[in-house]
Amino acid sequence: PYYVAFSQLLGLTVVAMTGAWLGMYRGGIAWESALQFNVHPLCMVIGLVFLQGDALLVYRVFRNEAKRTTKVLHGLLHVFAFVIALVGLVAVFEHHRKKGYADLYSLHSWCGILVFALFFAQWLVGFSFFLFPGASFSLRSRYRPQHVFFGAAIFLLSVATALLGLKEALLFELGTKYSTFEPEGVLANVLGLLLAAFATVVLYILTR
Amino acid sequence: PYYVAFSQLLGLTVVAMTGAWLGMYRGGIAWESALQFNVHPLCMVIGLVFLQGDALLVYRVFRNEAKRTTKVLHGLLHVFAFVIALVGLVAVFEHHRKKGYADLYSLHSWCGILVFALFFAQWLVGFSFFLFPGASFSLRSRYRPQHVFFGAAIFLLSVATALLGLKEALLFELGTKYSTFEPEGVLANVLGLLLAAFATVVLYILTR
Ligand code: HEM
Ligand code: HEM
Ligand code: HEM
Ligand code: HEM
Ligand SMILES: O=C1O[C@H]([C@@H](O)CO)C(O)=C1O
Repeated sequence: PYYVAFSQLLGLTVVAMTGAWLGMYRGGIAWESALQFNVHPLCMVIGLVFLQGDALLVYRVFRNEAKRTTKVLHGLLHVFAFVIALVGLVAVFEHHRKKGYADLYSLHSWCGILVFALFFAQWLVGFSFFLFPGASFSLRSRYRPQHVFFGAAIFLLSVATALLGLKEALLFELGTKYSTFEPEGVLANVLGLLLAAFATVVLYILTR
Repeated sequence: PYYVAFSQLLGLTVVAMTGAWLGMYRGGIAWESALQFNVHPLCMVIGLVFLQGDALLVYRVFRNEAKRTTKVLHGLLHVFAFVIALVGLVAVFEHHRKKGYADLYSLHSWCGILVFALFFAQWLVGFSFFLFPGASFSLRSRYRPQHVFFGAAIFLLSVATALLGLKEALLFELGTKYSTFEPEGVLANVLGLLLAAFATVVLYILTR
């Protein structure tokens, strides 16, 4: 109850702080310009962290609704999460192409592609087992614990990937100035801790 | 059963690969020299990732032993993990002092200090509730789910911190060469994925 309110407060703070970071220190957001890169962090945090996190909480928060309703909401939130994340992914690939940067060299980008692949697979399998009328009850109940475990794992890997991306974006830009406690570095460190806190609270609610 | 064997294989590979990375690309390990920094990643991976991970598995692997035995083993593994991690922590602080670098400016170091504080608190509370004879049964059973949740969360935060540290160590050294697929970068990316895989398998065993 209070945990859910707290999780939403944390989640919205994380999104707002990502926006504030990009606005204050990275010149804002735009698609057709050098600012296109900035679409990437914002979409990733909104889609794969905030919306994905909230999608996991649906069954806990709306306990008294019909299962059918919560299922559709859970599935839909994951669709929104995926579409927004896809926009963020296109943004960074286009930015790299325009600048002539190499693709997929970093640990962050490897984790990122893995997250996308796993998320997509989970979505397909979840959809076919739980929404498609054909799957039998016994099949569903055997798949359920796997779905929950991998759902939580994908969410955690998304947050870890976001932390690696944040770290990378800081080091590229700040370099050795990172160690002089520049305001941007401190803000981004706080954002990183809040991302970890959001993941913890979502997981806590999920496991109660 | 097979999962446990697999987790140990992954865990040992992660430790060996960390050693190989430091040996092949960072000149090896020593206390009284510029190589003192290299003690840090190795101790952290052995203590806070491998040993801490194995400590979490004790109750699952030795189901048929007396509870008292597994408890002591669980507690002891956490002591070893903590002592080794402490050596790694002293190494990086001494290295920073000798070089005149700033302390505790990075997201990695903030997460690292948080991990240490939480680990220490969990150890104290776990010890007083579970090993100390004074705690009543009802107290123990109310604390148990909190202990398990926070234990898993501390472990996951340790792995995330190690990933951030790895990323940082790569970017400091490789800089823009990271994007040309240098062997060191590729090795370290694989190490990063294996760290994430180890965490996933440990969590999977824990939640079965
Ligand atoms: C779960 C969330 C995220 C995912 C799945 C993700 C995924 C990716 C992928 C696949 C790439 C490679 C693009 C290419 O090679 O052309 C990339 C690049 C990048 N991302 Fe993210 N990202 C996420 C969050 C973030 C965040 C929050 C930031 C910054 C605050 C960030 C910063 C970067 C940077 C600087 C690059 C370019 C350097 C590189 O390729 O590693 N990312 N991201
Ligand atoms: C990539 C997308 C997805 C992720 C990460 C994911 C993750 C999760 C997680 C963590 C839970 C546990 C929630 C809880 O116990 O309160 C869950 C439950 C569930 N998910 Fe998904 N899910 C995804 C897609 C889907 C889709 C597309 C469907 C189909 C509608 C679906 C159907 C369900 C159902 C029915 C449950 C409830 C299981 C139960 O009865 O306890 N999921 N999901
Ligand atoms: C869970 C494991 C880890 C913890 C708890 C941890 C903790 C810390 C702490 C507290 C510092 C700050 C030292 C200071 O300010 O003087 C630090 C620094 C550092 N660590 Fe780690 N570390 C871990 C793993 C790693 C790994 C695996 C690597 C590299 C592969 C690494 C690389 C570094 C680097 C490069 C620094 C110096 C830059 C900075 O202060 O951020 N760490 N670590
Ligand atoms: C920082 C150190 C510690 C961490 C991260 C930690 C973590 C965990 C985790 C994740 C579990 C769940 C294992 C499972 O369900 O199979 C667990 C169980 C347990 N831990 Fe710890 N622990 C720590 C320290 C301690 C200490 C010092 C004691 C005291 C001896 C202790 C006593 C127990 C007991 C008795 C259980 C079993 C609860 C049950 O009956 O299911 N822990 N711990
Ligand atoms: O995709 C990238 O974005 C940053 C920078 O352009 C924006 O901070 C960078 O160095 C990349 O490789």
